[in-house]
Amino acid sequence: MSEGLNTLSATEIVRRISAGDCTAVDVMAACLERVSAREDAVGAFIHIDEAQALDAARNAGPGFLHGVPFGIKDICDTVDAPTGWGSPTYHGFQPPRDASCVNLFKRHGAVAMGKTVTTEFALRHPGKTANPHNLAHTPGGSSSGSAAAVADHMLPMAFASQTGGSIIRPAAYCGVLGYKPTHGAVDLDGVMGLAPSLDVLGLMAREVSDLALGRAALCGTSPSLDPAFAARPPRIGLVRGPDWDTCSEEMRDVCENALRALQKCGAETRELADPGTFKHLVKCHSIVMSFEGARTRSFEFDHHRDQMSAPFAAFVEEGRTHSWERYEEALATRGIGQQELAGVFEDVDVILTPASPGEAPEGLSETGDPLYNRIWTLLQVPCVSVPFGTGARGLPLAVQLVGPHRGDDRLLAAAAWVHDRLRG
Amino acid sequence: MSEGLNTLSATEIVRRISAGDCTAVDVMAACLERVSAREDAVGAFIHIDEAQALDAARNAGPGFLHGVPFGIKDICDTVDAPTGWGSPTYHGFQPPRDASCVNLFKRHGAVAMGKTVTTEFALRHPGKTANPHNLAHTPGGSSSGSAAAVADHMLPMAFASQTGGSIIRPAAYCGVLGYKPTHGAVDLDGVMGLAPSLDVLGLMAREVSDLALGRAALCGTSPSLDPAFAARPPRIGLVRGPDWDTCSEEMRDVCENALRALQKCGAETRELADPGTFKHLVKCHSIVMSFEGARTRSFEFDHHRDQMSAPFAAFVEEGRTHSWERYEEALATRGIGQQELAGVFEDVDVILTPASPGEAPEGLSETGDPLYNRIWTLLQVPCVSVPFGTGARGLPLAVQLVGPHRGDDRLLAAAAWVHDRLRG
Repeated sequence: MSEGLNTLSATEIVRRISAGDCTAVDVMAACLERVSAREDAVGAFIHIDEAQALDAARNAGPGFLHGVPFGIKDICDTVDAPTGWGSPTYHGFQPPRDASCVNLFKRHGAVAMGKTVTTEFALRHPGKTANPHNLAHTPGGSSSGSAAAVADHMLPMAFASQTGGSIIRPAAYCGVLGYKPTHGAVDLDGVMGLAPSLDVLGLMAREVSDLALGRAALCGTSPSLDPAFAARPPRIGLVRGPDWDTCSEEMRDVCENALRALQKCGAETRELADPGTFKHLVKCHSIVMSFEGARTRSFEFDHHRDQMSAPFAAFVEEGRTHSWERYEEALATRGIGQQELAGVFEDVDVILTPASPGEAPEGLSETGDPLYNRIWTLLQVPCVSVPFGTGARGLPLAVQLVGPHRGDDRLLAAAAWVHDRLRG
Repeated sequence: MSEGLNTLSATEIVRRISAGDCTAVDVMAACLERVSAREDAVGAFIHIDEAQALDAARNAGPGFLHGVPFGIKDICDTVDAPTGWGSPTYHGFQPPRDASCVNLFKRHGAVAMGKTVTTEFALRHPGKTANPHNLAHTPGGSSSGSAAAVADHMLPMAFASQTGGSIIRPAAYCGVLGYKPTHGAVDLDGVMGLAPSLDVLGLMAREVSDLALGRAALCGTSPSLDPAFAARPPRIGLVRGPDWDTCSEEMRDVCENALRALQKCGAETRELADPGTFKHLVKCHSIVMSFEGARTRSFEFDHHRDQMSAPFAAFVEEGRTHSWERYEEALATRGIGQQELAGVFEDVDVILTPASPGEAPEGLSETGDPLYNRIWTLLQVPCVSVPFGTGARGLPLAVQLVGPHRGDDRLLAAAAWVHDRLRG
């Protein structure tokens, strides 16, 4: 009965349970079985309690996520599981409440399965997770466990978060869909902050329809995909960005091949020049992120530095070198970039751009480079990573789709259109 | 030696300690003595530990806040004191860290004195605090304890927060200075969220120079007041706002008298019409606040409703009636209002407008009306409440000064100019 249920999308799980073909417990049991078989190798979870997960499935409430197991990045507070932020300082800490995102998922019938591995404080220093496509390679970060668990069919959907490239990059490396909402659209109550004007909570899944379901629970939007591109295909613009030349050749090929393939499927495509300020935005992102990060993690730096990785300490130290004036300048430049980007979206529905420099790098001591995500995170616009093909080492590659500020529903509709066509 | 030290400003405390006239322990002892004498009547603190406060004073670090006792609104996490959010659900909860604001104050030498009373979840349902000017009257809320403690000379400075009118209103009712920074300028890590696109952490004090000191610790700006208005007085515009007519007559008089008095002192003053969208903004604020609040406190509503006040439960229920589309519309209207307001600041340095409907109402079961604060909170601009005169019942009145977005340093400079002149 439960065979293969772990490979289903959230949308399909809800449909089958509703049709009486299986139960929430069957689905959870199948997912837990997959975890038993693979967790030693993949290391996606920092905390999982089988009995508790099955019990939660047994008691799943009604709603459009009824019976869907979900993974919780370990920067989200959970009332019934410790929340450690990927740091030895907080290892084993038990919060008194669920983060709002966790509670909203449960309210709509989803079932918490366990806490997924995050890098230390959602920055660079990695946890134990490996890339399920090749265990010698990083899954990316900081949402390492969520990307790996979804990719490895341990569960259909998981929370992720992004301040630099922490959703889109691991999604790309693991060959799953990653969705970074518009900044501010998803509530962050009970979610560890890193740089508040950049931080966003988002989702990993294997189907775009699941991202719409998850968004509906978090935001109160419709659980169905916007039918925007049923009648006419989306207008798609390739924006290479200022670091196109340092991107791997295979990623450049992936973007250009995707654009051609989508044009053949009827999309109106064009190639767009970078807006004027874009060449400054990676630096602006770095200033904003480290200035704000030095404040949010000020307590840990001052009182638990012995338990902090060298890269995180260096990040705080860098943030402390930036003056308030420099920070304000970076925010002002961001404002100009946002206006320029709004202009770009007068001509296209979505931007297509690299999701990562290339395949997931070898080794588990680094999580790869967020370079191709920083600008979009700074500009606070929604992004989706859509898998497309593989690289020379057989690992997944992906394009990144970017939508206008608060244009998440349209972006997801475009991502569904693109995903359907690119997976052939 | 310590006589009267509790009445000093933070600026003066730092000066005297630096000059060797007193020590941080002397200051703390004087403040604690005042608390001993008055706390039973005023009820400003939810938690205070004399020995711990004296010990902290003994170990105060160096910095431009060296030896300054400060109060911590009980929505801010503290590693050495429980943090209860004004709710029985969290009464006695001990966080594993200090909120960033607390740590940043300590880093610059300030000394934590205790946790001040907040209304339940920083909304309406009051705690035990009374107005020190008349114990039968409310101190306002939600930052009730911080306003009362500063007004009653228990300490020179305290953290406050605002989502509706929770800094400016209690400051006005208690006759102290309240400072609500530009939204986003002060980090909120470890501070309870209510409605994230409105929430701001700010300060209560008795001197504007103290607000600049506190801002410097929180933001990394200069601890000295901007000398902007040393050479020329500020240009001040009276904006009556859409609810001027429902304001008490004495508050209307206070605003108009203040404008005249400041003009006599050399300020260029004018009366400005409300920008076009202003008549819609109170409603927009209410939609944004309840929609977001229903998400942030979703866990408590779903799991601890039996411990929730009826007004808070009604607030969450109201928030759940608003659709995503209605929320987005309110945010879009806010965007127009922000553009209109930027235009107003082409002609004036600061806006002068009512801080509250009038004197603090009688009774401790309500905390008064935030009506005159909602628009400015929605627009995310910085505000300062400046005491001016008293009403028919002998209680303080105040004007509210409003500055442009991210124009906090200039606003504080203008507030110092105004405060110096209005206190006669």
